[in-house]
Amino acid sequence: MPYPETTTAFVVTDIKDGNWTKFSKQELKLKPFESHDIDIAIDACGVCASDVHTITGGWGSEIPLPLCVGHEVIGRAVKVGDAVKGVKVGDRVGVGAQIGADLTCNNCKADQENYCPNSIDTYGAPYPDGTISQGGYSSHIRAHEYFTFKIPDGLDTNLAAPMLCAGLTTYSPLVRLGCGPGKKVGIVGLGGLGHFAVLWAVALGAEVTVISHSPSKKEDALKLGAKHFISTKDDKWAEPHKFSLDFIVNCADATDKFNLSDYFSTLKVNGTFHMVGFPDNPLPSIMAQDFAPNGCYIGASHIGNRPEMEAMLELAAKQKIKSWVQTIDISEAGCKEAVERVYKNDNVKFRLTLTGFDKAFGKRA
Amino acid sequence: MPYPETTTAFVVTDIKDGNWTKFSKQELKLKPFESHDIDIAIDACGVCASDVHTITGGWGSEIPLPLCVGHEVIGRAVKVGDAVKGVKVGDRVGVGAQIGADLTCNNCKADQENYCPNSIDTYGAPYPDGTISQGGYSSHIRAHEYFTFKIPDGLDTNLAAPMLCAGLTTYSPLVRLGCGPGKKVGIVGLGGLGHFAVLWAVALGAEVTVISHSPSKKEDALKLGAKHFISTKDDKWAEPHKFSLDFIVNCADATDKFNLSDYFSTLKVNGTFHMVGFPDNPLPSIMAQDFAPNGCYIGASHIGNRPEMEAMLELAAKQKIKSWVQTIDISEAGCKEAVERVYKNDNVKFRLTLTGFDKAFGKRA
Repeated sequence: MPYPETTTAFVVTDIKDGNWTKFSKQELKLKPFESHDIDIAIDACGVCASDVHTITGGWGSEIPLPLCVGHEVIGRAVKVGDAVKGVKVGDRVGVGAQIGADLTCNNCKADQENYCPNSIDTYGAPYPDGTISQGGYSSHIRAHEYFTFKIPDGLDTNLAAPMLCAGLTTYSPLVRLGCGPGKKVGIVGLGGLGHFAVLWAVALGAEVTVISHSPSKKEDALKLGAKHFISTKDDKWAEPHKFSLDFIVNCADATDKFNLSDYFSTLKVNGTFHMVGFPDNPLPSIMAQDFAPNGCYIGASHIGNRPEMEAMLELAAKQKIKSWVQTIDISEAGCKEAVERVYKNDNVKFRLTLTGFDKAFGKRA
Repeated sequence: MPYPETTTAFVVTDIKDGNWTKFSKQELKLKPFESHDIDIAIDACGVCASDVHTITGGWGSEIPLPLCVGHEVIGRAVKVGDAVKGVKVGDRVGVGAQIGADLTCNNCKADQENYCPNSIDTYGAPYPDGTISQGGYSSHIRAHEYFTFKIPDGLDTNLAAPMLCAGLTTYSPLVRLGCGPGKKVGIVGLGGLGHFAVLWAVALGAEVTVISHSPSKKEDALKLGAKHFISTKDDKWAEPHKFSLDFIVNCADATDKFNLSDYFSTLKVNGTFHMVGFPDNPLPSIMAQDFAPNGCYIGASHIGNRPEMEAMLELAAKQKIKSWVQTIDISEAGCKEAVERVYKNDNVKFRLTLTGFDKAFGKRA
């Protein structure tokens, strides 16, 4: 094993001409080990739409190559820095989409480290020494303890992995927008993000309405705990639902094709249309007066903070919340299949987790 | 006097080919008098940018003609319906931009009558019987008591008139967004709306920053009580102000020409960019991820509700807040001058009030 200087990673080396599906195994340099760092031998990694937006160049064609994606990581701590509190060798821990921040700025001090201007993404971002962060399609990851989370007993590794990014990304806006008993919450788009949004909103006690362009998703929406289902295929679908929802968490990434005024009209006065899915294209044209019929807002968020991650994992463990996950063994072919299925939205219900890391990388310490 | 069946009004009869500046005097039918109605002999009417957007066809070319605009009305109650409580003949009262609502729907019951789906605008909107509502460039107006407000003693009629629309339009979002001591509030655009936003935000105890593309407005901004002034003419103007403002009330109606990401970047995490000025054109293209660096929101509001109007007038009287107003005597020429100056933003500092109604219409009862 080449660890601890490097990690053995499944990487893309070129993103032109469809090469983003060609994964190869490479040794990638890890950042220098520091006193707050934890090394994790990875056992599972969720496959996030962000991985696909990144390696297809949809979010921008300038990405550092070779690149190992994956930011829904669970494994075992195999080395723990001197200054680390709360995690010891052998603990089951996870890493999400953020792996660094300055932890000293006003945002960090206010538990808004996910908006730290010196935030470091889990993959594809430079560390101060120039090392590029590398993700979880890999044997190991080295993470600062602040961005490393103990996984509560009772949560299955493969089911918990996608919570680290998709779960937190939906949990954070829900709680910040006041999700709870008495609240009527709309969830747009029943995919990987949306299914988490429904699970959390129901667990937090809200009355959930799923809004989807696929009438066939009704059954799953209700199984996940939604009370109501609205198909946007129906003519004038928004009309009967005017002024009905406290807020919407929009988990679709096809918002660029939406008639936003229809969605806005379903909000109560001063309600919020909150986006967590980011299309590659701009939003549809908006007039300022489109917000005027109910004084509503549109906005978005970026993952969540540490207290929200801990609260979410605790909620999942306490209420035995089971994400819907399909697994694929990690390998060149497995990574290819995973990103292609997410890209094509091919029978993904609702998240994929790469597993079988011991087979690919051997039993690590 | 043809009142009480009609009001003598300065109207536009055609909005094509620049004819929106040609005012003529006409008798316009008033809605049937009902038990909750109050007839007002008008003494002053503010000139609102909405008047100009409407008669130029900027907000849509289909407007009922002839039309009398004006929705910042103050006068004396000259007739009061049997069911009216709280207003008696002789009282000084005002009417803003809304003159009707069903007062029975969920929004009305929740003090959100400004978002009632059956709201009636003060001018250019049909009453249930088909009569078109007509505004305040006129001898009289007939208004439901719910949309008629007693003007506190101590407020000058000419200075208070523009508070009825421009004042409320800025006051409402400020208080809903939590304006008060300890809050850092940005006001974009120092015009008719913006100068009220500064006056109110200062009166409510916030630390106010004016953001303007006209460096020459700095002196007035500080005179109005702002603590800071930012000129968007400066290169990288937003850079030193990142994450600094709790929210922004954008009073400009040139938002379609803004680099929105610059404005967004000045907001604290989960801050709000709130618009009260409505351009004739769509907003600049927005990506969902433009909101991600600080999880911010954009939205807009439509005037305000009755409790907010009453609180605003009380605040103005108590703190002796003086709007900056220039007056023009009402007449064909006066109306033309007023709308042209607002259209061209020609030395309007910061609101115009039409006055001299007795000269134009005689001393009404």
